Amino acid sequence: MRDRLVRIIGIDPGLRRTGWGVIETDGVRLTYVSSGLITSTADEALAYRLRELFEALSSVIAGSGASEAAVEETFVNENARATLKLGQARGMALLAPALRGLRIAEYSPNLVKKAVVGAGHAEKRQIQAMIGFLLPKARCESADEADALAIAICHANHRGAAALARRVLKEGV
Amino acid sequence: MRDRLVRIIGIDPGLRRTGWGVIETDGVRLTYVSSGLITSTADEALAYRLRELFEALSSVIAGSGASEAAVEETFVNENARATLKLGQARGMALLAPALRGLRIAEYSPNLVKKAVVGAGHAEKRQIQAMIGFLLPKARCESADEADALAIAICHANHRGAAALARRVLKEGV
Repeated sequence: MRDRLVRIIGIDPGLRRTGWGVIETDGVRLTYVSSGLITSTADEALAYRLRELFEALSSVIAGSGASEAAVEETFVNENARATLKLGQARGMALLAPALRGLRIAEYSPNLVKKAVVGAGHAEKRQIQAMIGFLLPKARCESADEADALAIAICHANHRGAAALARRVLKEGV
Repeated sequence: MRDRLVRIIGIDPGLRRTGWGVIETDGVRLTYVSSGLITSTADEALAYRLRELFEALSSVIAGSGASEAAVEETFVNENARATLKLGQARGMALLAPALRGLRIAEYSPNLVKKAVVGAGHAEKRQIQAMIGFLLPKARCESADEADALAIAICHANHRGAAALARRVLKEGV
């Protein structure tokens, strides 16, 4: 029960570093397409840093051929100032694909880790190791890229399950 | 020592309601231009709500003739989830003017209140009353519009002071 090929971009938002990773899936297999890291100039004012990230991410999305995007739900931690910064980067990371008409899904960090490592609590190096196994062609040098690819894989799994359920329940396959 | 006329848009970001207000200043006097409220559809997914707000705010900015924007610094409160939501709306509210090439300034809520009421702690109705006094032509029906106009006034005062200091220190006027 394979679907047509679909490209998914996973985004791991951050004001300093935003990781992205594109994979392709036919509903069964996953293939690595590309990944990278977008950074903003630390001594710029916030609005211009967000613009820098937004413009770079928009170009990546335009060139990626992705029709669906998955963004990690920001971890809401105890530090309000850090949460606010992440929130602002997240607003940017949701806007860029939304303005290009992509379908967008959000997943919690725990769900993303479960999708690639099988457990809700995993270390960054475990995620990187699993990305190397699941996407042998992946060239990702940073933890943020690996995280972004993990988010894309999480979405590929969930959209597959949802599509399967729709077919089984509708068609009685 | 009047400047050329400049238009300023003040923005009070929020995911449910984003207030905006445009004023004009010659460096001495302030004139009300326009103001309004942008809302997002509550039952839409976050990314599409941000897109809704962004597109509406971008149109407002394009039509406003503003060359400078002022955005309130979000109050970092105890509730991390609320802070995150505000952060996302704020990311949108900073991106919209940044992408249109406006100069952008940020002011704390206390500074904004001081600029219009003279004290860091003021009630919403006091701000609304002072907006009615400072901008007699203002047609603003909501507290969010009044806040946005207050942010614009705060910026008008500060940019004036900064410009004056530049002249005095440079020209010895």
